[in-house]
Amino acid sequence: MKFASLKHGRDGRLVLVSRDLSRCVAVADLAPTLQSALDDWDRLLPLLQARSDALNAGTLPDAVAFDEAACASPLPRAYQWADGSAYVNHVELVRRARGAELPPSFWTDPLMYQGGSDTFLGPRDPVVMADEAYGIDFEGEVAVITGDVPMAATPDQAGQAIRLVMLVNDVSLRGLIPEELAKGFGFFQSKPSSAFSPVAVTPDELGDAWADGKVHLPLLVTLNGEPFGKANAGVDMTFNMPALIAHAAKTRPLGAGAIIGSGTVSNKQDTAFGSAIKDGGVGYSCIAEVRMIETINTGKPSTPFMRFGDTVRIEMRDAAGQSVFGAIDQTVQPYTR
Amino acid sequence: MKFASLKHGRDGRLVLVSRDLSRCVAVADLAPTLQSALDDWDRLLPLLQARSDALNAGTLPDAVAFDEAACASPLPRAYQWADGSAYVNHVELVRRARGAELPPSFWTDPLMYQGGSDTFLGPRDPVVMADEAYGIDFEGEVAVITGDVPMAATPDQAGQAIRLVMLVNDVSLRGLIPEELAKGFGFFQSKPSSAFSPVAVTPDELGDAWADGKVHLPLLVTLNGEPFGKANAGVDMTFNMPALIAHAAKTRPLGAGAIIGSGTVSNKQDTAFGSAIKDGGVGYSCIAEVRMIETINTGKPSTPFMRFGDTVRIEMRDAAGQSVFGAIDQTVQPYTR
Repeated sequence: MKFASLKHGRDGRLVLVSRDLSRCVAVADLAPTLQSALDDWDRLLPLLQARSDALNAGTLPDAVAFDEAACASPLPRAYQWADGSAYVNHVELVRRARGAELPPSFWTDPLMYQGGSDTFLGPRDPVVMADEAYGIDFEGEVAVITGDVPMAATPDQAGQAIRLVMLVNDVSLRGLIPEELAKGFGFFQSKPSSAFSPVAVTPDELGDAWADGKVHLPLLVTLNGEPFGKANAGVDMTFNMPALIAHAAKTRPLGAGAIIGSGTVSNKQDTAFGSAIKDGGVGYSCIAEVRMIETINTGKPSTPFMRFGDTVRIEMRDAAGQSVFGAIDQTVQPYTR
Repeated sequence: MKFASLKHGRDGRLVLVSRDLSRCVAVADLAPTLQSALDDWDRLLPLLQARSDALNAGTLPDAVAFDEAACASPLPRAYQWADGSAYVNHVELVRRARGAELPPSFWTDPLMYQGGSDTFLGPRDPVVMADEAYGIDFEGEVAVITGDVPMAATPDQAGQAIRLVMLVNDVSLRGLIPEELAKGFGFFQSKPSSAFSPVAVTPDELGDAWADGKVHLPLLVTLNGEPFGKANAGVDMTFNMPALIAHAAKTRPLGAGAIIGSGTVSNKQDTAFGSAIKDGGVGYSCIAEVRMIETINTGKPSTPFMRFGDTVRIEMRDAAGQSVFGAIDQTVQPYTR
């Protein structure tokens, strides 16, 4: 099944979307919002599945054209958004660029930060920010939405709680990060509202591309229309989704609708840290990585962070070229109070 | 007005509570849950106020006895929980105990961490934890619930968005904190589910005790029936609630129902760092402070963290001795998977 939330009020209007993203149908009689569906998932699952099958078979007279631009994030606001950093190559790069060693424990104990979840951006909403000097960056990631997860769940239990898969632009303000992390309490102002893909899908929609708790497809990132990254989300992912969920649930349960992110997708390739698409590599899923490689190679970064007017697009296509989740496509704009 | 959420489903059943906490009345015809009231606050305010006035006048036939033990937290789950650390004495103590200086910026730039908000505990729920060795501690705090706050709001705008005030037990796992903070991404496993007071009140219910964005009343903390703390939440609060909200909203809007906490209430008194109630002081709002003072004085802590069976009670009484928010009262219990 594929789900989207059309913009409407604070929580959107839930629709089922056809596999090819061309048609959708409201399911208000079953669940008006995605959160309400997740809250009562086991009961609703067969009813939603039957509706989805009919939608894909073309037998629903009330189906209408699906418009990605009319979507909020699948959960326009959520009760939990925890973002891991499962592609340790990304973390190693960040550290290397500032001359710090990667602690060996980072290969066995996931990094994860608690994100804010009350005001997500829609997938086509602008990233509105007061100052370019904040160092506006995107981070292309995969995320899952869970059902209820008991405290201290095993990775097996955690894996069974995965309800939906989607993409994220975890917007980051690089200029605010060093000072904020130096205070010791983690990210806050440096992680503004994130945006998610128009569509969230059940894992079975991914077919063979969903294996071992990972999405084995390239994450296509385009910056101002130029290919920027196509790193495979199934490669170099040290901690899979069940491991990240279990980490988040170690000392507390997670509520239905919890979103757990993978962290920036990053492939090491056959090089020290990866290389740009123009150099024959798979590129990157955030600007910071390019700047770190530039810093390691030349002593300073040369690629700028995003400026007002810049656009980033993040999507994933299956083996047949079909967009799986629809596209996040966001332009940076100045904020005026 | 005073609000509570009786335990019912995932979001509780909203009731208005009389000023003396003796009676309550369901308001399902206006708003079934507190979140739904916050989502539509301006429209509902006069309707809720009229109902509350009638409740306090004793003219509502459907009012029933109010039972704090039947309550979930006012928001059983929330979209945003951000906790400041506004009592800088507390922060200075933590640092001093480990021999670190307090950066001067800590007096001008609030510390704040992003909390998890999907599975709050009820005010009388046990704190269930797998291992005493996690170093289970309570943190007594004040918190506010906001309406919508625009990005980059001024403290004035932020103050106007304060809808409700309540108390928090920000449960902390001291044994997990050092290693987690060393990873650089802030708290996660070391901050399990928090619990809030049975009742959340509009600021006007506090009368003169609500001034300058602070609650000027002692926070009464009892550990296993013994008085442990009575620090005044209006004293030594370096950043008031509007300043904390504005900090949280610097790079993103906050959604209606966002909870912002004060951090552990801590009074410096006339001593270097405060002293215990038995020594004539106002005591403490968490065990960690006592242990830090013990460490500073004798080289090591002697007061243990909470053990299975230990109970903490947190409340606030007005000048007439009336409990304002009802009491958080929680016992630590072992968790079995």
